Amino acid sequence: METRMERIEKDIEAIALFTATPGSGITRVTFSEKYIRARSYIIEELNSLGARISATLGGNLRGRLEGTEKGTACVMMGSHLDSVLHGGKYDGVAGVVSALEAARVIVEEEIPHRHPIDVIVFAEEEGSRFGSGLIGSRAWTGHLSLDDLPHLRDNEGMTYLEAMERSGVLTDDPSVLEAKDVKAMIELHIEQGIVLEKRGLQIGLVERIAGIRQFLVTIHGVSNHAGGTPMGLRNDALQGAVRIIAETEEIAAHTVGDPTVATVGFVICEPGQFNIIPGKVQFPVDIRDPDSRRLDETAKRILAAVERICLHRGLTFEVTPKSDIAPVALSQEVSSLIDKVARRKGIEPLRMTSGALHDSSIMAAITNVGMIFVPSKDGRSHCPEEFTEIKDIKLGADIFLDAMVQLSS
Amino acid sequence: METRMERIEKDIEAIALFTATPGSGITRVTFSEKYIRARSYIIEELNSLGARISATLGGNLRGRLEGTEKGTACVMMGSHLDSVLHGGKYDGVAGVVSALEAARVIVEEEIPHRHPIDVIVFAEEEGSRFGSGLIGSRAWTGHLSLDDLPHLRDNEGMTYLEAMERSGVLTDDPSVLEAKDVKAMIELHIEQGIVLEKRGLQIGLVERIAGIRQFLVTIHGVSNHAGGTPMGLRNDALQGAVRIIAETEEIAAHTVGDPTVATVGFVICEPGQFNIIPGKVQFPVDIRDPDSRRLDETAKRILAAVERICLHRGLTFEVTPKSDIAPVALSQEVSSLIDKVARRKGIEPLRMTSGALHDSSIMAAITNVGMIFVPSKDGRSHCPEEFTEIKDIKLGADIFLDAMVQLSS
Repeated sequence: METRMERIEKDIEAIALFTATPGSGITRVTFSEKYIRARSYIIEELNSLGARISATLGGNLRGRLEGTEKGTACVMMGSHLDSVLHGGKYDGVAGVVSALEAARVIVEEEIPHRHPIDVIVFAEEEGSRFGSGLIGSRAWTGHLSLDDLPHLRDNEGMTYLEAMERSGVLTDDPSVLEAKDVKAMIELHIEQGIVLEKRGLQIGLVERIAGIRQFLVTIHGVSNHAGGTPMGLRNDALQGAVRIIAETEEIAAHTVGDPTVATVGFVICEPGQFNIIPGKVQFPVDIRDPDSRRLDETAKRILAAVERICLHRGLTFEVTPKSDIAPVALSQEVSSLIDKVARRKGIEPLRMTSGALHDSSIMAAITNVGMIFVPSKDGRSHCPEEFTEIKDIKLGADIFLDAMVQLSS
Repeated sequence: METRMERIEKDIEAIALFTATPGSGITRVTFSEKYIRARSYIIEELNSLGARISATLGGNLRGRLEGTEKGTACVMMGSHLDSVLHGGKYDGVAGVVSALEAARVIVEEEIPHRHPIDVIVFAEEEGSRFGSGLIGSRAWTGHLSLDDLPHLRDNEGMTYLEAMERSGVLTDDPSVLEAKDVKAMIELHIEQGIVLEKRGLQIGLVERIAGIRQFLVTIHGVSNHAGGTPMGLRNDALQGAVRIIAETEEIAAHTVGDPTVATVGFVICEPGQFNIIPGKVQFPVDIRDPDSRRLDETAKRILAAVERICLHRGLTFEVTPKSDIAPVALSQEVSSLIDKVARRKGIEPLRMTSGALHDSSIMAAITNVGMIFVPSKDGRSHCPEEFTEIKDIKLGADIFLDAMVQLSS
């Protein structure tokens, strides 16, 4: 029982053609024409396996291989097909294709399974179109209500539900997914980080998904002419900000330490001219950690640095919270199963924390979730350079297949 | 012999009405409709004094009060009427109005003068429309040739000469201004800095105009997902940049020290998202000092910091030079005269360096230039909040008047 590398490769290349930005990466936003074509590709493949296709609440695609025992909870496998703007061809797709290939092997080899096996394509994972991610999984599991969806609009003002309907995705089953409906789920995903590659490993086993704390820091100083203001008479907002940003790294890397990460992704200076001292500076802080207490501690230390540095430099500040997402523990049972299956193939998976969110973060609230990571070259993701070797995806898919067969039997 | 405060105030308020952005500061770019109306206001006032009006090479306005001896070099006084976008009502205008008021007093009180006295409105001092400043003075003195002017275009592609012609400013005298034509010049200007106010002084005497060294630093790191990349595996371009920016301040403020100033006005991060480690960061460095060697030393130390910090962090960099303008020494003779005149009025002027460039920087290459600074509230300039007390401008104008009378006698 083995997946076939050439089919995985063919699927990935076929789906990669569905991009709005050929030649500069994958742009396939949820419910766009290219998205619907990629989704149709998966539907056709699932149809040829005899799967029962439906669209769930929130616009997720579900292809079911019925089990031998009616009415039992299903086991799920899948990921997403939507992309960031100018992203890569593996993010999400690697997981969808692995699930499709696993389904093919199960059907072809007539592997018996008591539980229904569902291949899932979650909708709007990235948040590239409607400003907020994980919409499909959040809507399906009741984390987002139908009352919330009309408020999610794309850049042109179209709501999530309008966009879904116009693209021809019509909900077949409006029910909220509940714990009783699902026995377990496995998602395979590219790591989007550099850890597996640096260690020369092929398989990661995600035990936790890090919590995220994001806030925006605004520093107010006094904007003045760069030539007319001696150094000692300045209240330069940027000079305060750079010391805070440097300390953010120190706190995450040394004071709190691994696995905490803290990132400042941009700095906006006003008025933002060559010859004017910045009077106002804004920058975001993104903190991730699998442990809530460490998230709290890191945030607290960074906020203390903001306060201390601003006070010392005659600056004022505001902090605007942006996100506060709790860490998620994935299923120990499913993880042990994946670990055992991998070891039987001679692979020792690296137990990891995912720093990025996935639909698995949401699904873990209602079912037993396991996640398999495969390496990302140079850790690059969300860019056209994103790359994962097909042989690594195949290895992940084989482990995935074995685990699914056991879970569904 | 004294200037009249109410006339100075009336002139400033009248000119302040000529703005393209009423309610949000002064926007009066060179050769725009509002600019031409402000210029016409000055022409009318000069006409009523019997001055001979002409437009010089480069579109500067010259209003001449003939002297008693034909053919002698003139003495000049003036500044500019063009503004930055959303600037204040004193920058440039304070100097033009002081010159106009001095001319009024000289005419009304029939003060004899051997040399012609020229009131000058220099064109395009700020560089707000054609991307480069001091155009009027540079063209007039031959620092910019007629071959250069067609290459200066505004945002809509109109050249400097086209814009000048369309606005009705037609050069009467196409000759390049030479040293033999001008005996001396004085410019009054708002300080645009905080030094006079902090010391509670009313008058600054500018001895030097600082040189400027500007360059753009580009740091290249590796852009990665903020969640998937441990702190120890990052090549975060922003974390390198913030340490360089912090050190820029240290070098200017402490290692080299006063009067050196160094400013970073903005930071651009790519890709510039909350959850992505910046892979590329650009920021400008603006260094000013009245002494060339100190400019060199400051630049050298900052560049050494760029190299050291990048090397240490696995980052690469490029440095693109942007400006290199030598310091200018103003006339010791004219400065002594201004100083003597001020002391006779019981004022001890503060000897200062101007960190900002002025038309005086250009004029100093061909004649003896003196500059008088009056205080700027909170050091604010190039913004709607720019403010100078009329009594301070009047005091400056009185000193200015006395000095002009002596220079022209």
